[in-house]
Amino acid sequence: MRGMQLDSLNPALLNVQYAVRGELAIKAESYRENLKSDDHGLPFNQVISSNIGNPQQKGLDQPPITFNRQIAALLEWPALAELAKDAFPKDVLARAKQLKEEIGSIGAYSHSQGVPMIRKHVADFIAERDGYPADPNHIFLTGGASAGVSLLISMLISSPKDGILIPIPQYPLYTATLAAYSGVPLPYHLDEESEWATSPRDIEESIKKAQADGINVKALVIINPGNPTGALLDEPVMESVVRMCEQHNLVLLADEVYQSNLHSRDTHPFISFKQVVCAMGSPVPLVSFHSISKGVTGECGRRGGYFEATNIGDDVVALMYKMVSVGLCPPLAGQIGVDCMVRPPKPGDESYPLYQKETDLTHQVLAERTKLMAQRLNKLPGARCVNSPGALYLYPRIELPDKAVEAARQAGKEPDAFYALQLLDETGICVVPGSGFGQKEGEHHYRLTCLCPGVEEYVTALERFHLGFMERYA
Amino acid sequence: MRGMQLDSLNPALLNVQYAVRGELAIKAESYRENLKSDDHGLPFNQVISSNIGNPQQKGLDQPPITFNRQIAALLEWPALAELAKDAFPKDVLARAKQLKEEIGSIGAYSHSQGVPMIRKHVADFIAERDGYPADPNHIFLTGGASAGVSLLISMLISSPKDGILIPIPQYPLYTATLAAYSGVPLPYHLDEESEWATSPRDIEESIKKAQADGINVKALVIINPGNPTGALLDEPVMESVVRMCEQHNLVLLADEVYQSNLHSRDTHPFISFKQVVCAMGSPVPLVSFHSISKGVTGECGRRGGYFEATNIGDDVVALMYKMVSVGLCPPLAGQIGVDCMVRPPKPGDESYPLYQKETDLTHQVLAERTKLMAQRLNKLPGARCVNSPGALYLYPRIELPDKAVEAARQAGKEPDAFYALQLLDETGICVVPGSGFGQKEGEHHYRLTCLCPGVEEYVTALERFHLGFMERYA
Repeated sequence: MRGMQLDSLNPALLNVQYAVRGELAIKAESYRENLKSDDHGLPFNQVISSNIGNPQQKGLDQPPITFNRQIAALLEWPALAELAKDAFPKDVLARAKQLKEEIGSIGAYSHSQGVPMIRKHVADFIAERDGYPADPNHIFLTGGASAGVSLLISMLISSPKDGILIPIPQYPLYTATLAAYSGVPLPYHLDEESEWATSPRDIEESIKKAQADGINVKALVIINPGNPTGALLDEPVMESVVRMCEQHNLVLLADEVYQSNLHSRDTHPFISFKQVVCAMGSPVPLVSFHSISKGVTGECGRRGGYFEATNIGDDVVALMYKMVSVGLCPPLAGQIGVDCMVRPPKPGDESYPLYQKETDLTHQVLAERTKLMAQRLNKLPGARCVNSPGALYLYPRIELPDKAVEAARQAGKEPDAFYALQLLDETGICVVPGSGFGQKEGEHHYRLTCLCPGVEEYVTALERFHLGFMERYA
Repeated sequence: MRGMQLDSLNPALLNVQYAVRGELAIKAESYRENLKSDDHGLPFNQVISSNIGNPQQKGLDQPPITFNRQIAALLEWPALAELAKDAFPKDVLARAKQLKEEIGSIGAYSHSQGVPMIRKHVADFIAERDGYPADPNHIFLTGGASAGVSLLISMLISSPKDGILIPIPQYPLYTATLAAYSGVPLPYHLDEESEWATSPRDIEESIKKAQADGINVKALVIINPGNPTGALLDEPVMESVVRMCEQHNLVLLADEVYQSNLHSRDTHPFISFKQVVCAMGSPVPLVSFHSISKGVTGECGRRGGYFEATNIGDDVVALMYKMVSVGLCPPLAGQIGVDCMVRPPKPGDESYPLYQKETDLTHQVLAERTKLMAQRLNKLPGARCVNSPGALYLYPRIELPDKAVEAARQAGKEPDAFYALQLLDETGICVVPGSGFGQKEGEHHYRLTCLCPGVEEYVTALERFHLGFMERYA
């Protein structure tokens, strides 16, 4: 019947593109199913999902933090505090008791903005990180950072002439959500030659171009550390960005979900936009997003995160509250995950040594793997790769031979998607083509995560495929 | 700065109204805070949140099902299966093991549509309930039913001339979400004189009126069992409704989240729209929603639910998949809650006796309380109340004296909101005024849940307040 056919549905949604879970991911899932049969006939024995930053996925190896899971288990079934008391460290029992007293059952809806006590803890965490106070009433716990980004974009886009500045390459959540709300993505390019640096001048040019096109520029998205680039902004650039937002009346949307994924914290520390805005005494409206899905927590499946609204009036915060209240509340398991992230065990706590060991290992493994993968990819003909100082990804650039580009055209594919599909078919490794994140005309990239164990074997498979592909289309 | 001020934001959102968590709920929360101090000066000692169907909320008393929580705890910290083996029944250990093997870590993103095995179990549950098969690929696990409803409305509304038929009274999620997407709510009235029956003729009239107004009628929402009414549709009415959808090319959105909240299952059984559509061999596109937040499960805080798409093409299902993939996946804790709801313990399982005892008690307490509250409310002067056969609520009608209506006008409030605010101020009981759900011009209602323990004291407080209010404005 006509009522539910594609041509009768909201056309804005047809324009949405989200490559991270697109054609390649769907094909990878079907390979994963095929591998369950003995005579699968595939040239590989496992699918490696390097398309998505999903640290705890089967086959990847970032273990959950035991402290977090013990607390979650106690809140799920509080009787365990008596029935299996000896299985839990004392600080875990005390923490779970405190949360239970505040929250009651985690099967109940909480305050729509998130449990007040947890928001207070988030505010403490932010204040300690930045040296400036945070207001729990301006903090919203969310089901992952994505839910917050989607809320903000829905608020900012009033007409198809409203646009938001998006870095290229970007995490496609931004263009996907903008497309759903019929807003205009306004690209500004990161500079691959300078390790994917953010150039205030390029942003300024993009603003001018948009204004000339009659677009009302509403906000600027910065992803720091970058996704897919891993690049970290330094303070002078951040200050320029804030000044530019002041000058053009832009809302600054700071996606800071990778803030604790830093491979060399001494030389490349993370500085939050909240800190910069406060230090400058700037009136720029800032919304900064964080998540439990990344970092050493890696708890994607809980759907937990938060955003903080700075320099934003109480009336607008009330509007945000009203909108999240329609969705009732963020998942309690995610909210508790946020509490664990912002209140990890401290030296002296019974849980501390294990926590320290687990998180050190996660940091170390990721840093080593990122370095090794970047080194090896950089040795390949026709490939080069910025050695990312943060986040979970590499974004190598590949120079595809003309013959490959031509073959891709004939297959009706973007050249890098064509490359990535063959990579998946031959090796079982699923990556996301650069066309899903954005790149300059004629350039080709792909994003892969650095989460895979057995990195030696993994990189060897990537190398072998790449050499074979280049030869095939030489 | 201008970038983030109300008048520069999406005006559609300013029109959103969601009374369940509106002015009254916010005031109730502030009273709850005040009560923490000894000299609060309030004329009550607790706030009773009867505004929201939140069975496990503090102070209410629907306990979680132990089976569900034991499984959740084992998935949170799988080491418990060894460390505290004796604390868990054998069927729980086996079930948790099976889920763990399929899912891996619950800290990982799942398939965006939900874990395939859990969708298979949902399909089995639907097939057993209805006697017709269900396709796991057309089932989407969601973060509560609300997330699914929101997705469907976002798909259906392409222009401000598109409308969706909504029952009055309704659960305000529908009007709120329609307002956010600039769609037109097309009210049809339920008949209070016939125990809130759904009248196909009234729906038909609403369709004609909308068409005359140039509105493109896209879908029909039915809430069965009703919210706030608790009414249950019978089969002939459901068949008429399906035929009407066929005739007018409407998508049928069946909100069936209260399907297991039935107070007299023998005389008023639940029949799903899926069953009716299949029995009729109808091609009507049907999306039916279910949730773990209600029923005997009552796990609101996990954010779990599902919808099933019937008679909807694979291309549209692919669009749904794309849209949910932007949000990555529903919370794993909610997905596991769905699995527990559709696969409860069976006779012979070690967990079965406790499960049976817990759920019988929940059914019984709710039925008794609903009956008692309806009886007592019906004895009050100027109040009457349909004795609801299902769901969690009563929706009494109150005849407010002219003086009260006048006083409300002077206070700038809807008369029933005026009544409800005084009820809160005097008794600490928070209800939702009928103006939040919709009612006929000049009528006044309020919705309250039947979840409160100490029902005798609770009803007495309601009675005393009502009599005092009526006297005050006589």
